[in-house]
Amino acid sequence: MKLSRLGEFGLIERIRRTTATGRGVRIGIGDDCAWVEHAGASALITTDLLIEHIHFDLKWTSLFDLGYKSLAVNLSDVAAMGGIADYAILSLGIPATFDSKQIDEFYRGFNRLAHRHGVALIGGDTNVADSLIISVCVIGHPTARPIRRSGARVGDDIYVTGTLGDSALGLALLRKKWPATKPGVIRKLVARHHRPMPQLRAGALLARLNIATAMIDISDGLLQDLGHICQASKVGAVIWNDNLPISSAYRALLGKVGSGYALSGGEDYELLFCARPRHRQLIDKLHRAGRVKITRIGRCVGAKQGIVVLDDSGKPIKSKIPGHDHFKKQ
Amino acid sequence: MKLSRLGEFGLIERIRRTTATGRGVRIGIGDDCAWVEHAGASALITTDLLIEHIHFDLKWTSLFDLGYKSLAVNLSDVAAMGGIADYAILSLGIPATFDSKQIDEFYRGFNRLAHRHGVALIGGDTNVADSLIISVCVIGHPTARPIRRSGARVGDDIYVTGTLGDSALGLALLRKKWPATKPGVIRKLVARHHRPMPQLRAGALLARLNIATAMIDISDGLLQDLGHICQASKVGAVIWNDNLPISSAYRALLGKVGSGYALSGGEDYELLFCARPRHRQLIDKLHRAGRVKITRIGRCVGAKQGIVVLDDSGKPIKSKIPGHDHFKKQ
Repeated sequence: MKLSRLGEFGLIERIRRTTATGRGVRIGIGDDCAWVEHAGASALITTDLLIEHIHFDLKWTSLFDLGYKSLAVNLSDVAAMGGIADYAILSLGIPATFDSKQIDEFYRGFNRLAHRHGVALIGGDTNVADSLIISVCVIGHPTARPIRRSGARVGDDIYVTGTLGDSALGLALLRKKWPATKPGVIRKLVARHHRPMPQLRAGALLARLNIATAMIDISDGLLQDLGHICQASKVGAVIWNDNLPISSAYRALLGKVGSGYALSGGEDYELLFCARPRHRQLIDKLHRAGRVKITRIGRCVGAKQGIVVLDDSGKPIKSKIPGHDHFKKQ
Repeated sequence: MKLSRLGEFGLIERIRRTTATGRGVRIGIGDDCAWVEHAGASALITTDLLIEHIHFDLKWTSLFDLGYKSLAVNLSDVAAMGGIADYAILSLGIPATFDSKQIDEFYRGFNRLAHRHGVALIGGDTNVADSLIISVCVIGHPTARPIRRSGARVGDDIYVTGTLGDSALGLALLRKKWPATKPGVIRKLVARHHRPMPQLRAGALLARLNIATAMIDISDGLLQDLGHICQASKVGAVIWNDNLPISSAYRALLGKVGSGYALSGGEDYELLFCARPRHRQLIDKLHRAGRVKITRIGRCVGAKQGIVVLDDSGKPIKSKIPGHDHFKKQ
């Protein structure tokens, strides 16, 4: 079967089935991080491979921002398990024409975020390549029992941190899909695309309070990542379109009508999680205390219902734009 | 400065200087593995990035062998610290035209070696890419104090495990630099290129017996990797050309004259280590007990002497072929 038909998630499932586990593997392939407990230690491990022209374009991305973001997307996976990040390993395939100053810029961006979160860069590999290739592995540890994708139950509330769609809208602006008429607004959205904020504090807080039944970070778009929770937890979901947290910058540009980027745009790197209704007050308290912006956007329903997005009159929105699959043709 | 001038090792040194360490980092950038001790756990971590057309060619490498070798080169780094490998993380950039059966073959090869060494594949990332990209990270643990590159002293003996040059000669044969006249011999050499044997048992044994003062695995050629030990240990080295362990297959093809591949050919994945002369008998015993083939090939001298290769009459061999640097023009 061609990979373009099997798709990324079909491939991951195929790999998962053929590989054995052992040596204290608590969570293997198929969640945001692997989780191992071995010789008295507990570690969360995640990795991301970023390839020029596929994941980023140096036409509109600085090497500083690229270094920053390469680490951010991995820290976001640690956040999604409620963990703390400790170590990073960074491998680069670098075009031979690159200048060492450009590589310095990349490391400056990477280290800026690493220092902020107390992450130590401990190793890697450097090679010559035709285009820029970035492989980052982050090792961290749980602050409490890691939050999986599979713990949601029918009746659970669905929440997200921060605002949705800004990054994808920022990318569309970089690709000049809109005329550049509001420079301040555009700057904000583009910044969200270039420097996502991994929600490590929020993730660890939710893990320690033991209130998230399932959690994932939104990298491929809300609906697609919600799909992973639904599949792992064997539930469906109803999302209220009007409750989606939309930033003022997003609203200024697209108004209320355009929720497409919030529903299906990728690279938000916010946390999507589920919790029992009895924890509503506690979550609302976290939100009001200003420790982290949290918005309730829907509810888990029976698996048969699938994922439905409702408008303010309760009618299903038909146009469910699919999220991003690296192999399937869009 | 262009990377082609700075070179791979200049770049690594540059990166090392600009990155801070912390959180129990015992060994950071610049050895075969990083070593961290954190929250009661001790871990060795290494990574390798393999890129099509740079590191391998699918014209003469099967996907099974490629999967096998991708893990082997990482296990070899763990061996070089005297460690045991526990977990692997594997990321792939895959051309969209690939068939899922090809990917299965890759994982079959990877898992074959993983099972042999009790390594669990716990995660990774899959992406579409223009050419095949493989990023492997292996996490292990020390069996004793990890052996660094920096402990060699003037007067130490220099040893290698196994035989040298077979892999580079096998690659030359694949590239058809020699007419294919001895199929049995060729098969052996090509197999050494495709399926290197990471010397995990030998590495762990040397660590537990506490007899290796410095160790590295030979990936870029004996002279280049010896250069890393010499630089880290601030010593020079004399190598006796006639003592180099040459396989019968190598000898059958090139005779005694052609030690070039043994001195500078890459991808042997044997262990190169130094030890005090008082441990000669013990090392000889290990060798004779058949637990691991070990050959004494030289001695550490003052740093000023650099690295000298002597022929059987004690004359320096002038033609010191440089080893492999991924950025510098060969």
